[in-house]
Amino acid sequence: MTYCVGLKLNAGLVLLSDTRTNAGLDNISTYRKMFFFENPGERVIVIMTAGSLSVTQTTLARLNEAIEHPDADEQNSIMHASSMLRVATIIGENLNRTRRDIAEQCRDLNQQASASMIVAGQRKGGDMRLFLIYPEGNFIEATDDTPFLQVGEHKYGKPILDRVVTPETSLADAQKAVLLSMDSTLRSNLSVGMPLDLAVIERDDFRVSQRRRIMDGDPAFMAMSAAWSTALRDSFVKVTI
Amino acid sequence: MTYCVGLKLNAGLVLLSDTRTNAGLDNISTYRKMFFFENPGERVIVIMTAGSLSVTQTTLARLNEAIEHPDADEQNSIMHASSMLRVATIIGENLNRTRRDIAEQCRDLNQQASASMIVAGQRKGGDMRLFLIYPEGNFIEATDDTPFLQVGEHKYGKPILDRVVTPETSLADAQKAVLLSMDSTLRSNLSVGMPLDLAVIERDDFRVSQRRRIMDGDPAFMAMSAAWSTALRDSFVKVTI
Repeated sequence: MTYCVGLKLNAGLVLLSDTRTNAGLDNISTYRKMFFFENPGERVIVIMTAGSLSVTQTTLARLNEAIEHPDADEQNSIMHASSMLRVATIIGENLNRTRRDIAEQCRDLNQQASASMIVAGQRKGGDMRLFLIYPEGNFIEATDDTPFLQVGEHKYGKPILDRVVTPETSLADAQKAVLLSMDSTLRSNLSVGMPLDLAVIERDDFRVSQRRRIMDGDPAFMAMSAAWSTALRDSFVKVTI
Repeated sequence: MTYCVGLKLNAGLVLLSDTRTNAGLDNISTYRKMFFFENPGERVIVIMTAGSLSVTQTTLARLNEAIEHPDADEQNSIMHASSMLRVATIIGENLNRTRRDIAEQCRDLNQQASASMIVAGQRKGGDMRLFLIYPEGNFIEATDDTPFLQVGEHKYGKPILDRVVTPETSLADAQKAVLLSMDSTLRSNLSVGMPLDLAVIERDDFRVSQRRRIMDGDPAFMAMSAAWSTALRDSFVKVTI
Protein backbone atom coordinates (compact mmCIF):
# COMPACT_ATOMS: atom_id res chain seq x y z
CA MET A 1 0.00 0.00 0.00
CA THR A 2 0.89 3.63 0.26
CA TYR A 3 0.13 6.75 2.19
CA CYS A 4 0.13 10.14 0.46
CA VAL A 5 -1.39 13.31 1.87
CA GLY A 6 -1.78 16.81 0.45
CA LEU A 7 -2.82 19.98 2.29
CA LYS A 8 -4.11 23.15 0.66
CA LEU A 9 -3.60 26.08 3.00
CA ASN A 10 -3.84 29.82 2.57
CA ALA A 11 -0.04 29.95 2.66
CA GLY A 12 0.60 27.16 0.17
CA LEU A 13 0.52 23.44 -0.54
CA VAL A 14 2.19 20.78 1.63
CA LEU A 15 2.67 17.26 0.28
CA LEU A 16 4.01 14.07 1.80
CA SER A 17 4.34 10.54 0.44
CA ASP A 18 5.94 7.30 1.53
CA THR A 19 7.92 5.04 -0.82
CA ARG A 20 6.93 1.47 -0.01
CA THR A 21 5.73 -0.72 -2.84
CA ASN A 22 4.85 -4.34 -2.48
CA ALA A 23 3.70 -7.17 -4.70
CA GLY A 24 2.64 -9.53 -1.97
CA LEU A 25 4.17 -9.35 1.46
CA ASP A 26 7.42 -10.99 0.37
CA ASN A 27 8.25 -8.59 -2.42
CA ILE A 28 8.82 -5.15 -0.98
CA SER A 29 10.54 -2.34 -2.85
CA THR A 30 11.18 1.37 -2.57
CA TYR A 31 9.74 3.59 -5.31
CA ARG A 32 9.29 7.33 -5.35
CA LYS A 33 5.60 8.24 -5.40
CA MET A 34 6.02 12.02 -5.68
CA PHE A 35 6.74 13.57 -9.07
CA PHE A 36 7.55 17.16 -9.94
CA PHE A 37 6.66 19.06 -13.10
CA GLU A 38 8.09 22.54 -12.98
CA ASN A 39 8.57 25.58 -15.17
CA PRO A 40 9.89 27.76 -12.36
CA GLY A 41 8.12 31.07 -12.11
CA GLU A 42 5.35 29.96 -14.51
CA ARG A 43 3.92 26.71 -13.16
CA VAL A 44 4.50 23.93 -10.70
CA ILE A 45 2.66 20.61 -10.57
CA VAL A 46 3.23 17.77 -8.11
CA ILE A 47 1.68 14.34 -8.61
CA MET A 48 1.55 11.73 -5.84
CA THR A 49 0.53 8.18 -6.72
CA ALA A 50 -1.12 5.23 -4.99
CA GLY A 51 -2.03 1.85 -6.36
CA SER A 52 -0.64 -0.51 -8.96
CA LEU A 53 2.90 0.48 -9.88
CA SER A 54 2.42 -0.60 -13.48
CA VAL A 55 -0.57 1.75 -13.78
CA THR A 56 1.13 4.73 -12.12
CA GLN A 57 4.44 4.35 -13.96
CA THR A 58 2.76 3.96 -17.35
CA THR A 59 0.48 6.94 -16.68
CA LEU A 60 3.47 9.12 -15.75
CA ALA A 61 5.41 7.89 -18.80
CA ARG A 62 2.48 8.87 -21.01
CA LEU A 63 2.19 12.29 -19.35
CA ASN A 64 5.92 12.87 -19.92
CA GLU A 65 5.74 11.66 -23.49
CA ALA A 66 2.90 14.09 -24.20
CA ILE A 67 4.89 16.98 -22.69
CA GLU A 68 7.95 16.21 -24.84
CA HIS A 69 6.02 15.46 -28.02
CA PRO A 70 6.36 18.03 -30.87
CA ASP A 71 2.54 18.27 -30.93
CA ALA A 72 2.32 19.01 -27.20
CA ASP A 73 -0.53 21.42 -26.58
CA GLU A 74 -3.18 22.57 -24.16
CA GLN A 75 -5.23 19.45 -24.87
CA ASN A 76 -2.65 16.80 -24.00
CA SER A 77 0.30 18.27 -22.08
CA ILE A 78 0.10 19.22 -18.43
CA MET A 79 2.96 21.70 -19.00
CA HIS A 80 0.95 23.45 -21.74
CA ALA A 81 -2.49 23.25 -20.13
CA SER A 82 -4.07 26.64 -19.51
CA SER A 83 -5.41 25.83 -16.04
CA MET A 84 -4.93 23.42 -13.14
CA LEU A 85 -8.42 22.12 -13.91
CA ARG A 86 -7.19 21.15 -17.39
CA VAL A 87 -4.09 19.58 -15.78
CA ALA A 88 -6.31 17.41 -13.55
CA THR A 89 -8.46 16.48 -16.53
CA ILE A 90 -5.46 15.40 -18.62
CA ILE A 91 -4.05 13.34 -15.76
CA GLY A 92 -7.47 11.77 -15.17
CA GLU A 93 -7.83 10.88 -18.85
CA ASN A 94 -4.38 9.28 -18.94
CA LEU A 95 -4.92 7.42 -15.69
CA ASN A 96 -8.27 6.04 -16.81
CA ARG A 97 -6.93 5.00 -20.23
CA THR A 98 -3.88 3.30 -18.70
CA ARG A 99 -5.98 1.56 -16.08
CA ARG A 100 -8.35 0.24 -18.77
CA ASP A 101 -5.47 -0.92 -20.99
CA ILE A 102 -3.86 -2.84 -18.13
CA ALA A 103 -7.18 -4.24 -16.89
CA GLU A 104 -7.73 -5.55 -20.43
CA GLN A 105 -4.29 -7.18 -20.37
CA CYS A 106 -5.00 -8.73 -16.96
CA ARG A 107 -8.51 -9.88 -17.83
CA ASP A 108 -7.63 -13.55 -18.16
CA LEU A 109 -6.05 -13.54 -14.71
CA ASN A 110 -9.09 -11.91 -13.10
CA GLN A 111 -6.68 -9.47 -11.47
CA GLN A 112 -7.36 -5.87 -10.64
CA ALA A 113 -4.92 -3.09 -11.47
CA SER A 114 -5.97 0.31 -10.31
CA ALA A 115 -4.49 3.56 -9.04
CA SER A 116 -5.39 6.99 -7.76
CA MET A 117 -3.41 10.21 -7.59
CA ILE A 118 -3.16 13.49 -5.75
CA VAL A 119 -2.37 16.46 -8.00
CA ALA A 120 -1.29 19.78 -6.55
CA GLY A 121 -0.05 22.93 -8.17
CA GLN A 122 -0.43 26.46 -9.37
CA ARG A 123 0.19 28.26 -12.65
CA LYS A 124 0.76 31.97 -13.07
CA GLY A 125 -2.59 33.73 -13.30
CA GLY A 126 -4.43 30.94 -11.49
CA ASP A 127 -5.06 29.81 -7.93
CA MET A 128 -3.34 26.98 -6.11
CA ARG A 129 -5.37 23.79 -6.45
CA LEU A 130 -5.31 20.33 -4.95
CA PHE A 131 -7.14 17.39 -6.56
CA LEU A 132 -7.69 13.72 -5.80
CA ILE A 133 -8.01 11.79 -9.06
CA TYR A 134 -9.92 8.53 -8.94
CA PRO A 135 -8.99 5.45 -11.00
CA GLU A 136 -11.80 6.28 -13.46
CA GLY A 137 -10.32 9.71 -14.10
CA ASN A 138 -12.94 11.80 -12.32
CA PHE A 139 -11.73 13.94 -9.45
CA ILE A 140 -12.56 15.96 -6.37
CA GLU A 141 -10.88 19.10 -5.08
CA ALA A 142 -9.80 20.27 -1.64
CA THR A 143 -11.77 23.22 -0.25
CA ASP A 144 -11.62 25.42 2.84
CA ASP A 145 -13.99 23.02 4.59
CA THR A 146 -11.82 20.03 3.72
CA PRO A 147 -8.30 21.35 3.19
CA PHE A 148 -6.62 17.96 2.91
CA LEU A 149 -6.80 14.94 0.60
CA GLN A 150 -5.34 11.49 1.16
CA VAL A 151 -4.76 8.36 -0.91
CA GLY A 152 -3.75 4.88 0.20
CA GLU A 153 -3.77 3.89 3.87
CA HIS A 154 -5.54 7.06 4.95
CA LYS A 155 -7.37 6.04 8.10
CA TYR A 156 -4.60 5.80 10.71
CA GLY A 157 -3.39 9.32 9.96
CA LYS A 158 -6.76 11.04 9.58
CA PRO A 159 -7.62 11.78 13.25
CA ILE A 160 -4.63 14.11 13.75
CA LEU A 161 -5.41 15.99 10.50
CA ASP A 162 -9.10 16.27 11.45
CA ARG A 163 -8.03 17.85 14.71
CA VAL A 164 -5.32 20.33 13.73
CA VAL A 165 -5.50 21.30 10.05
CA THR A 166 -7.43 24.37 8.88
CA PRO A 167 -6.75 26.69 5.93
CA GLU A 168 -5.07 29.09 8.40
CA THR A 169 -2.49 26.48 9.49
CA SER A 170 1.06 27.75 8.83
CA LEU A 171 3.36 25.91 6.43
CA ALA A 172 5.60 24.93 9.35
CA ASP A 173 2.68 23.49 11.35
CA ALA A 174 1.35 21.82 8.24
CA GLN A 175 4.62 19.97 7.70
CA LYS A 176 4.50 18.85 11.31
CA ALA A 177 0.88 17.71 10.88
CA VAL A 178 1.54 15.59 7.78
CA LEU A 179 4.66 14.08 9.36
CA LEU A 180 2.74 13.15 12.52
CA SER A 181 -0.07 11.77 10.36
CA MET A 182 2.53 9.67 8.52
CA ASP A 183 4.18 8.66 11.80
CA SER A 184 0.89 7.18 13.09
CA THR A 185 0.47 5.33 9.80
CA LEU A 186 4.03 3.97 9.78
CA ARG A 187 3.61 2.66 13.32
CA SER A 188 0.34 0.88 12.63
CA ASN A 189 0.74 -0.40 9.08
CA LEU A 190 3.69 -2.28 7.63
CA SER A 191 2.67 -1.59 4.05
CA VAL A 192 3.69 2.06 4.43
CA GLY A 193 7.42 2.67 4.78
CA MET A 194 10.36 5.04 4.87
CA PRO A 195 11.95 6.99 3.24
CA LEU A 196 9.46 9.84 2.88
CA ASP A 197 9.22 12.64 0.32
CA LEU A 198 8.09 16.03 1.59
CA ALA A 199 7.41 19.04 -0.61
CA VAL A 200 6.16 22.56 0.04
CA ILE A 201 4.83 24.92 -2.61
CA GLU A 202 4.42 28.44 -1.31
CA ARG A 203 1.52 30.47 -2.70
CA ASP A 204 2.47 32.37 -5.86
CA ASP A 205 5.97 30.90 -5.87
CA PHE A 206 5.24 28.78 -8.99
CA ARG A 207 8.01 26.34 -8.09
CA VAL A 208 8.71 23.62 -5.53
CA SER A 209 9.71 25.95 -2.69
CA GLN A 210 11.12 23.16 -0.51
CA ARG A 211 11.69 19.48 -1.10
CA ARG A 212 13.20 16.97 1.22
CA ARG A 213 13.73 13.24 1.34
CA ILE A 214 13.52 11.93 4.89
CA MET A 215 15.54 8.74 5.21
CA ASP A 216 14.98 5.93 7.69
CA GLY A 217 16.71 6.98 10.90
CA ASP A 218 16.53 10.71 10.09
CA PRO A 219 17.43 12.29 13.47
CA ALA A 220 14.90 15.15 13.27
CA PHE A 221 12.05 12.82 12.25
CA MET A 222 12.98 10.31 14.96
CA ALA A 223 13.14 13.06 17.56
CA MET A 224 9.74 14.39 16.49
CA SER A 225 8.27 10.90 16.54
CA ALA A 226 9.67 10.21 20.02
CA ALA A 227 8.54 13.60 21.33
CA TRP A 228 5.04 12.98 19.95
CA SER A 229 4.88 9.54 21.58
CA THR A 230 5.95 11.04 24.89
CA ALA A 231 3.48 13.90 24.55
CA LEU A 232 0.67 11.46 23.73
CA ARG A 233 1.51 9.27 26.71
CA ASP A 234 1.70 12.32 28.99
CA SER A 235 -1.65 13.54 27.65
CA PHE A 236 -3.08 10.07 28.19
CA VAL A 237 -2.06 10.16 31.84
CA LYS A 238 -3.56 13.64 32.32
CA VAL A 239 -6.94 12.97 30.70
CA THR A 240 -9.52 11.51 33.05
CA ILE A 241 -12.77 9.67 32.56
CA MET B 1 -19.97 -0.19 9.88
CA THR B 2 -18.97 -0.74 13.44
CA TYR B 3 -16.10 -0.38 15.82
CA CYS B 4 -15.57 -2.94 18.59
CA VAL B 5 -12.39 -3.37 20.59
CA GLY B 6 -11.36 -5.82 23.29
CA LEU B 7 -8.32 -5.69 25.57
CA LYS B 8 -6.88 -8.63 27.50
CA LEU B 9 -4.83 -7.35 30.42
CA ASN B 10 -3.31 -8.98 33.44
CA ALA B 11 -6.05 -7.40 35.54
CA GLY B 12 -8.97 -8.36 33.32
CA LEU B 13 -10.84 -7.84 30.07
CA VAL B 14 -12.08 -4.46 28.81
CA LEU B 15 -14.59 -4.29 25.97
CA LEU B 16 -16.14 -1.43 24.05
CA SER B 17 -18.57 -1.34 21.13
CA ASP B 18 -20.57 1.28 19.27
CA THR B 19 -24.20 0.79 18.21
CA ARG B 20 -24.52 2.21 14.71
CA THR B 21 -25.99 -0.01 12.05
CA ASN B 22 -26.66 1.08 8.52
CA ALA B 23 -28.14 -0.39 5.38
CA GLY B 24 -26.92 2.24 2.98
CA LEU B 25 -26.22 5.76 4.18
CA ASP B 26 -29.90 6.69 4.37
CA ASN B 27 -30.96 3.87 6.68
CA ILE B 28 -29.21 4.25 10.00
CA SER B 29 -30.28 2.49 13.17
CA THR B 30 -29.07 1.80 16.68
CA TYR B 31 -28.46 -1.82 17.64
CA ARG B 32 -26.59 -3.23 20.60
CA LYS B 33 -23.48 -5.08 19.45
CA MET B 34 -22.36 -6.36 22.87
CA PHE B 35 -24.00 -9.45 24.33
CA PHE B 36 -23.57 -11.00 27.76
CA PHE B 37 -23.73 -14.66 28.71
CA GLU B 38 -23.28 -15.07 32.41
CA ASN B 39 -23.50 -17.71 35.11
CA PRO B 40 -22.14 -15.45 37.85
CA GLY B 41 -19.29 -17.02 39.77
CA GLU B 42 -18.94 -19.86 37.22
CA ARG B 43 -18.52 -18.27 33.79
CA VAL B 44 -18.84 -15.04 31.90
CA ILE B 45 -18.79 -14.64 28.11
CA VAL B 46 -19.13 -11.40 26.16
CA ILE B 47 -19.66 -11.38 22.39
CA MET B 48 -19.22 -8.23 20.28
CA THR B 49 -20.39 -8.27 16.67
CA ALA B 50 -19.49 -6.53 13.41
CA GLY B 51 -20.91 -7.01 9.95
CA SER B 52 -24.27 -7.91 8.50
CA LEU B 53 -26.99 -7.55 11.14
CA SER B 54 -28.93 -10.50 9.73
CA VAL B 55 -25.89 -12.73 10.15
CA THR B 56 -25.04 -11.55 13.67
CA GLN B 57 -28.63 -11.63 14.95
CA THR B 58 -29.28 -15.10 13.54
CA THR B 59 -25.99 -16.40 14.92
CA LEU B 60 -26.84 -15.08 18.38
CA ALA B 61 -30.38 -16.49 18.16
CA ARG B 62 -28.92 -19.91 17.32
CA LEU B 63 -26.42 -19.69 20.19
CA ASN B 64 -29.27 -18.82 22.59
CA GLU B 65 -31.48 -21.57 21.22
CA ALA B 66 -28.71 -24.12 21.80
CA ILE B 67 -28.22 -22.92 25.37
CA GLU B 68 -31.93 -23.24 26.16
CA HIS B 69 -32.46 -26.51 24.32
CA PRO B 70 -33.09 -29.62 26.50
CA ASP B 71 -30.17 -31.31 24.71
CA ALA B 72 -27.76 -28.47 25.47
CA ASP B 73 -24.31 -29.88 26.08
CA GLU B 74 -20.58 -29.28 25.85
CA GLN B 75 -20.73 -29.72 22.06
CA ASN B 76 -23.33 -27.08 21.21
CA SER B 77 -23.93 -24.70 24.13
CA ILE B 78 -21.49 -21.97 25.09
CA MET B 79 -22.90 -22.06 28.63
CA HIS B 80 -22.08 -25.78 28.90
CA ALA B 81 -18.74 -25.77 27.04
CA SER B 82 -15.84 -26.96 29.18
CA SER B 83 -13.39 -24.29 28.00
CA MET B 84 -13.25 -20.83 26.38
CA LEU B 85 -11.59 -22.52 23.41
CA ARG B 86 -14.70 -24.68 23.00
CA VAL B 87 -16.85 -21.53 23.37
CA ALA B 88 -14.94 -19.85 20.53
CA THR B 89 -15.25 -23.00 18.40
CA ILE B 90 -19.03 -23.21 18.91
CA ILE B 91 -19.47 -19.53 18.08
CA GLY B 92 -17.26 -19.92 15.00
CA GLU B 93 -19.25 -22.92 13.80
CA ASN B 94 -22.55 -21.09 14.23
CA LEU B 95 -21.25 -17.93 12.58
CA ASN B 96 -19.90 -19.83 9.58
CA ARG B 97 -23.09 -21.87 9.18
CA THR B 98 -25.30 -18.76 9.41
CA ARG B 99 -23.09 -16.83 7.01
CA ARG B 100 -23.27 -19.67 4.48
CA ASP B 101 -27.04 -20.02 4.84
CA ILE B 102 -27.57 -16.30 4.24
CA ALA B 103 -25.02 -16.16 1.41
CA GLU B 104 -26.97 -18.99 -0.24
CA GLN B 105 -30.21 -17.00 0.16
CA CYS B 106 -28.55 -13.88 -1.28
CA ARG B 107 -26.85 -15.70 -4.15
CA ASP B 108 -29.22 -14.46 -6.83
CA LEU B 109 -28.60 -10.86 -5.77
CA ASN B 110 -24.82 -11.25 -5.89
CA GLN B 111 -24.75 -9.68 -2.43
CA GLN B 112 -22.32 -10.41 0.34
CA ALA B 113 -23.45 -11.00 3.91
CA SER B 114 -20.64 -11.51 6.34
CA ALA B 115 -19.75 -10.87 9.97
CA SER B 116 -16.98 -11.22 12.50
CA MET B 117 -17.03 -11.29 16.28
CA ILE B 118 -14.91 -10.66 19.33
CA VAL B 119 -15.41 -13.18 22.13
CA ALA B 120 -14.10 -12.56 25.62
CA GLY B 121 -14.54 -14.42 28.84
CA GLN B 122 -13.42 -16.74 31.57
CA ARG B 123 -14.82 -19.84 33.21
CA LYS B 124 -13.92 -21.14 36.64
CA GLY B 125 -10.81 -23.28 36.39
CA GLY B 126 -9.64 -21.62 33.18
CA ASP B 127 -7.80 -18.47 32.12
CA MET B 128 -9.33 -15.31 30.71
CA ARG B 129 -9.32 -15.44 26.92
CA LEU B 130 -10.04 -13.02 24.11
CA PHE B 131 -10.73 -14.22 20.54
CA LEU B 132 -11.45 -12.64 17.19
CA ILE B 133 -13.69 -14.93 15.15
CA TYR B 134 -13.56 -14.59 11.38
CA PRO B 135 -16.61 -14.99 9.11
CA GLU B 136 -15.42 -18.50 8.19
CA GLY B 137 -15.43 -19.55 11.85
CA ASN B 138 -11.68 -19.75 12.38
CA PHE B 139 -10.22 -17.47 15.02
CA ILE B 140 -7.15 -15.83 16.53
CA GLU B 141 -6.44 -15.04 20.15
CA ALA B 142 -5.00 -12.02 21.95
CA THR B 143 -1.58 -12.58 23.52
CA ASP B 144 0.83 -10.58 25.67
CA ASP B 145 2.50 -9.30 22.50
CA THR B 146 -0.81 -8.20 21.03
CA PRO B 147 -3.18 -7.63 23.94
CA PHE B 148 -6.01 -6.10 21.91
CA LEU B 149 -8.31 -7.20 19.11
CA GLN B 150 -10.56 -5.02 16.96
CA VAL B 151 -13.36 -5.57 14.45
CA GLY B 152 -15.00 -3.09 12.08
CA GLU B 153 -13.50 0.33 11.47
CA HIS B 154 -10.30 -0.48 13.33
CA LYS B 155 -7.73 1.79 11.70
CA TYR B 156 -8.55 5.23 13.10
CA GLY B 157 -8.37 4.00 16.68
CA LYS B 158 -5.35 1.72 16.38
CA PRO B 159 -2.50 4.26 16.80
CA ILE B 160 -3.50 5.18 20.36
CA LEU B 161 -3.81 1.51 21.35
CA ASP B 162 -0.44 0.70 19.75
CA ARG B 163 1.10 3.43 21.87
CA VAL B 164 -0.40 2.92 25.31
CA VAL B 165 -1.76 -0.60 25.80
CA THR B 166 0.35 -3.37 27.33
CA PRO B 167 -0.69 -6.34 29.49
CA GLU B 168 0.31 -4.29 32.55
CA THR B 169 -2.14 -1.47 31.74
CA SER B 170 -4.60 -0.97 34.62
CA LEU B 171 -8.33 -1.51 34.10
CA ALA B 172 -8.91 2.23 34.61
CA ASP B 173 -6.30 3.20 32.01
CA ALA B 174 -7.59 0.51 29.67
CA GLN B 175 -11.10 1.99 29.77
CA LYS B 176 -9.61 5.38 28.98
CA ALA B 177 -7.60 3.88 26.10
CA VAL B 178 -10.58 2.18 24.45
CA LEU B 179 -12.73 5.28 24.89
CA LEU B 180 -10.05 7.49 23.29
CA SER B 181 -9.64 4.93 20.52
CA MET B 182 -13.42 5.10 19.96
CA ASP B 183 -13.34 8.91 20.15
CA SER B 184 -10.85 9.11 17.27
CA THR B 185 -13.01 6.70 15.26
CA LEU B 186 -16.25 8.60 15.95
CA ARG B 187 -14.65 11.86 14.84
CA SER B 188 -13.30 10.47 11.58
CA ASN B 189 -15.98 8.01 10.47
CA LEU B 190 -19.73 8.59 10.32
CA SER B 191 -20.52 4.89 10.15
CA VAL B 192 -19.56 4.47 13.82
CA GLY B 193 -21.91 6.14 16.29
CA MET B 194 -23.09 6.66 19.86
CA PRO B 195 -24.30 5.31 22.22
CA LEU B 196 -21.44 3.07 23.35
CA ASP B 197 -21.41 -0.10 25.45
CA LEU B 198 -18.49 -0.55 27.82
CA ALA B 199 -17.85 -3.66 29.90
CA VAL B 200 -15.12 -4.74 32.29
CA ILE B 201 -14.50 -8.31 33.44
CA GLU B 202 -12.06 -8.48 36.32
CA ARG B 203 -9.77 -11.50 36.44
CA ASP B 204 -11.30 -14.43 38.34
CA ASP B 205 -14.56 -12.53 38.93
CA PHE B 206 -16.50 -14.82 36.54
CA ARG B 207 -19.12 -12.11 35.96
CA VAL B 208 -19.46 -8.79 34.16
CA SER B 209 -17.77 -6.70 36.85
CA GLN B 210 -18.86 -3.35 35.35
CA ARG B 211 -21.13 -2.47 32.47
CA ARG B 212 -22.11 0.95 31.27
CA ARG B 213 -24.01 2.45 28.37
CA ILE B 214 -22.56 5.81 27.37
CA MET B 215 -25.24 7.95 25.73
CA ASP B 216 -24.70 10.71 23.19
CA GLY B 217 -23.91 13.84 25.19
CA ASP B 218 -22.63 11.89 28.23
CA PRO B 219 -20.90 14.63 30.26
CA ALA B 220 -17.93 12.51 31.36
CA PHE B 221 -17.29 11.22 27.83
CA MET B 222 -17.63 14.70 26.34
CA ALA B 223 -15.26 16.13 28.95
CA MET B 224 -12.71 13.38 28.24
CA SER B 225 -13.04 13.93 24.50
CA ALA B 226 -12.58 17.70 24.86
CA ALA B 227 -9.64 17.27 27.24
CA TRP B 228 -8.00 14.84 24.81
CA SER B 229 -8.46 17.26 21.90
CA THR B 230 -6.93 20.06 23.94
CA ALA B 231 -4.07 17.83 25.07
CA LEU B 232 -3.40 16.73 21.48
CA ARG B 233 -3.39 20.31 20.23
CA ASP B 234 -1.09 21.38 23.08
CA SER B 235 1.22 18.46 22.30
CA PHE B 236 1.14 19.42 18.63
CA VAL B 237 2.31 22.92 19.48
CA LYS B 238 5.11 21.60 21.69
CA VAL B 239 6.53 19.03 19.28
CA THR B 240 9.07 20.43 16.84
CA ILE B 241 10.49 19.21 13.57
